[in-house]
Amino acid sequence: MKVITKNFTIESRKKIDFIDITNSVEDVLREVEVVEGLVTIFTPHTTTCLFINEDEKRLMDDLEKMLEKLVPIKGNYFHDNVDDNAYAHLRSILLSTSISIPVSGGKLLLGTWQNIFLAEFDGPRKRTYIIQVMGA
Amino acid sequence: MKVITKNFTIESRKKIDFIDITNSVEDVLREVEVVEGLVTIFTPHTTTCLFINEDEKRLMDDLEKMLEKLVPIKGNYFHDNVDDNAYAHLRSILLSTSISIPVSGGKLLLGTWQNIFLAEFDGPRKRTYIIQVMGA
Amino acid sequence: MKVITKNFTIESRKKIDFIDITNSVEDVLREVEVVEGLVTIFTPHTTTCLFINEDEKRLMDDLEKMLEKLVPIKGNYFHDNVDDNAYAHLRSILLSTSISIPVSGGKLLLGTWQNIFLAEFDGPRKRTYIIQVMGA
Repeated sequence: MKVITKNFTIESRKKIDFIDITNSVEDVLREVEVVEGLVTIFTPHTTTCLFINEDEKRLMDDLEKMLEKLVPIKGNYFHDNVDDNAYAHLRSILLSTSISIPVSGGKLLLGTWQNIFLAEFDGPRKRTYIIQVMGA
Repeated sequence: MKVITKNFTIESRKKIDFIDITNSVEDVLREVEVVEGLVTIFTPHTTTCLFINEDEKRLMDDLEKMLEKLVPIKGNYFHDNVDDNAYAHLRSILLSTSISIPVSGGKLLLGTWQNIFLAEFDGPRKRTYIIQVMGA
Repeated sequence: MKVITKNFTIESRKKIDFIDITNSVEDVLREVEVVEGLVTIFTPHTTTCLFINEDEKRLMDDLEKMLEKLVPIKGNYFHDNVDDNAYAHLRSILLSTSISIPVSGGKLLLGTWQNIFLAEFDGPRKRTYIIQVMGA
């Protein structure tokens, strides 16, 4: 049973950004040679999140619009007196900071249309995410 | 330490459907004889999700109504020019594609009122979910 | 490879409450001496949830306001004929019942501003959460 944990750094390109990180997860899995196990991806920030869905440009535009409707950037937030990014924290809470994906037969069990994204809500900035593989 | 991964197929019955899959998870756990460990459930689609809550008919009606309010089926979505199901992708992002449940003393540590659901947002269709048990 | 599972009990102080449980997770990790592994936190209730974000008073007020906007306490819910807390179940579905955090070098890989919260939506009550550490 192995536990391998790796840190990755990326640069988000704008205030709100959805970055496909699937390749880095596939690369780690190939490198560590775990055949049966679990991959956990984690983002150690309070204004980013992780999600899985289709990498389709118009869908990402819809997602940005949906988040703006549910948790608008300008929203009379109390936390904006501390730091002008309450919406980014709230979106991060609404979505998630970790995702888990089973590995079997040496393959990440993502569906055909599933990609893994890091969502930036307070960019552009340098960001980190962690990929952990546990298994044998 | 064992890692057992199993695929399940179900048929959703309508466009929006919440299917209680708790029994299949309990069955797998009994079969694999893991006493201490972790169960991960994963859905490999981009228009379904997984959640845990009470299996109560009226609550499921409330959930359908809440999702229609937050992410309506008809919403002037850009992705609807590609495929007429943007709302289903967005709901899947808003909720989650994986859940983790600890196992101890041979038991899934679900609370009394907790059941595990697969949510269909673009049915009726044949759907898959993966149950992985890791432990000893 | 060890799997250690511990139960914790806390008392929420009001109807809607966000309780920082980070210290208990750090304590368990120190106690079990797992250097490389995964921590899973799970809440076995249908009207609580878990999330990670900054422990900042005004942000928690914003979160309460956001949830009241998205899933109001009074909402003409069908489930309220069964039990007067449909909003609490729905919020629990919208957020999450489990979180996963990688451990490496004996440390929980939380970011500088990240804290772990149990969210109470139907308090004040005695509540339980489970911390599981798997690793070596």
